[in-house]
Amino acid sequence: MFTLVASLPHARHGILKTEHGTVKTPFFMPVATAGAMKGITQRDLLELNAQILLCNTYHLHLQPGEDTVERAGGLHTFIGWEKPILTDSGGYQVFSFGKRGATNVTEEGVHFRSHLNGDAHFIGPKESMHIQHMLGADIIMVFDECPPSTAKRTSIEKAVDRTLRWAKECRKINDAYKQQTGKNPLLFGIVQGGLERDLREKCAQELQAIGFDGYAIGGLAVGENEEQMLSVVEAVAPLLPKDKPRYLMGVGDVEQIRACVERGIDMFDSVMPMRIARHGTILLSNRSQIRITNAQFKEDHSPIDPESPSHLSRQHTRSYLHHLLRANERLGETIAQMQNLGVTLQSMQQLRNAQ
Amino acid sequence: MFTLVASLPHARHGILKTEHGTVKTPFFMPVATAGAMKGITQRDLLELNAQILLCNTYHLHLQPGEDTVERAGGLHTFIGWEKPILTDSGGYQVFSFGKRGATNVTEEGVHFRSHLNGDAHFIGPKESMHIQHMLGADIIMVFDECPPSTAKRTSIEKAVDRTLRWAKECRKINDAYKQQTGKNPLLFGIVQGGLERDLREKCAQELQAIGFDGYAIGGLAVGENEEQMLSVVEAVAPLLPKDKPRYLMGVGDVEQIRACVERGIDMFDSVMPMRIARHGTILLSNRSQIRITNAQFKEDHSPIDPESPSHLSRQHTRSYLHHLLRANERLGETIAQMQNLGVTLQSMQQLRNAQ
Repeated sequence: MFTLVASLPHARHGILKTEHGTVKTPFFMPVATAGAMKGITQRDLLELNAQILLCNTYHLHLQPGEDTVERAGGLHTFIGWEKPILTDSGGYQVFSFGKRGATNVTEEGVHFRSHLNGDAHFIGPKESMHIQHMLGADIIMVFDECPPSTAKRTSIEKAVDRTLRWAKECRKINDAYKQQTGKNPLLFGIVQGGLERDLREKCAQELQAIGFDGYAIGGLAVGENEEQMLSVVEAVAPLLPKDKPRYLMGVGDVEQIRACVERGIDMFDSVMPMRIARHGTILLSNRSQIRITNAQFKEDHSPIDPESPSHLSRQHTRSYLHHLLRANERLGETIAQMQNLGVTLQSMQQLRNAQ
Repeated sequence: MFTLVASLPHARHGILKTEHGTVKTPFFMPVATAGAMKGITQRDLLELNAQILLCNTYHLHLQPGEDTVERAGGLHTFIGWEKPILTDSGGYQVFSFGKRGATNVTEEGVHFRSHLNGDAHFIGPKESMHIQHMLGADIIMVFDECPPSTAKRTSIEKAVDRTLRWAKECRKINDAYKQQTGKNPLLFGIVQGGLERDLREKCAQELQAIGFDGYAIGGLAVGENEEQMLSVVEAVAPLLPKDKPRYLMGVGDVEQIRACVERGIDMFDSVMPMRIARHGTILLSNRSQIRITNAQFKEDHSPIDPESPSHLSRQHTRSYLHHLLRANERLGETIAQMQNLGVTLQSMQQLRNAQ
């Protein structure tokens, strides 16, 4: 259940209730792909005030498999995380890996090969719902077709139609599972349509006719520029119901998040803050950023970020982090990632306070 | 200063005083090669009751360089560790890399090439003392020649003679630095001599004639078998002064440590517990060990080690750790390393309590 607490001009502040507790919106979800962050423990995540994690259905299906996770007592028990979890549908991954020519899309779903060992696999709406229910996440996503935002109109049109047919099927299957298991995950629809306004509009409306617990905007942050991305968000957000959470998939830049919150988005996820951290781009709590691997930081013996939400960045110096990343020391990646995640989560807190 | 608190038959319990506080013996030193453990933070080390760290002079000399470390305020400040630090002399590394044919040994020291970029470098007793003083460790080591324990007698004989000449020079240089800087690091001599009893004896006696704050046994854990190693320890330990700490370099197997403590050794270091952790061998607090990557642990949903000194191993399951290491997730390495280091440090505590 989603309760809107404040909504001034467009930015919103609300509370999303899940089976593992409530989450305050707007929020950012750290991505624990195969059930773990790179070099960050679950205790670290709690210290940085992470409210909810995203895990990838595709990766967990391949390894260790949803059967193992279910026997462990579900994903929360398996990974040792008591707060809410969202799983994606696997759609984005099986279509991305499709670029390597390994997939074959039918009306039932996608044939693909494991990136681990080349084994043949198949996921469609039925399989995705099954896997996500076995994993036991609090928020689950419909299986969608996700073409690049820059694809031709005809292929985007086909993708929207298939996404809508699959969304209907996912809704039906989810209803049946809910009745069968007594569990009550929130099911989110995904608005596709690339950069085509009318297709986005059609998709948003038909998804609402099916009815979901929340609505995501998919197919962005995959090649288009920032202006195009914001223009789609600006067009689609007002078409979505006010009383349901809105999730922009794959956007993790702090300033872009701010811009999208102002346009009415509630939920975000991205691996970007973590990836740029590993390569030496450090977000600071004063909204600037530095390239810590640059020569100027070799002798900068001041704290990485004295106001950081991460104790590591308050304790350690820029010269130490410079050294660790230059020397390929994993502790450097941990310090950098904790910093960028901490700053991203802190900025969400500021956005919530601003409402 | 070293105070022997208890000594029953041979095993000893003492207190070693350094410029950054006291350390209870016997102890194990985690190896923070370039000033950091792999995937373990300084806070983690404190939680596992690490009393003292070992850092490698060779690595820190190449990157970031002792000048940078000194400008940071010394190694303790640079890496954010307030407890004692021991630095090795660099001797072991420059001779190990010599096996690749990159070194040229003279009476003044060793010409070698950086393993990072092939640059030419030179370290001898003078350079090693200089670097270690710049780094500012609490315990520093003489620069020694370290041939494999299985080398021919003639080359071991030459190495012992050179080690003794270099030890004398290191003592002299260290005395001068101490007078000059007012700092008072403990300088340890290193007994070489391979598996040759008489050479070990000669080396031990002549080092004592020079006079050091502690005595290490070097050139072991580099190819000989356990019986040979223990027999050298058994022969050398009684030749060393009772009122100085004794350090067996490079031995980190918990059972071997027990055997060596019983033979009068006080100090240990090794990367071994961490390396086997990364490859899936997990030490348990009940003194057994498991190969966590074996298929039998895929569905073992019990805690990794309910009695573990590491919170991660009490919180997480064997199936989760199995999954993480199989999936090459860094969190798996962190959990495994924290476990093995925790158990190793805990066993040192038990050995201290047993005195």
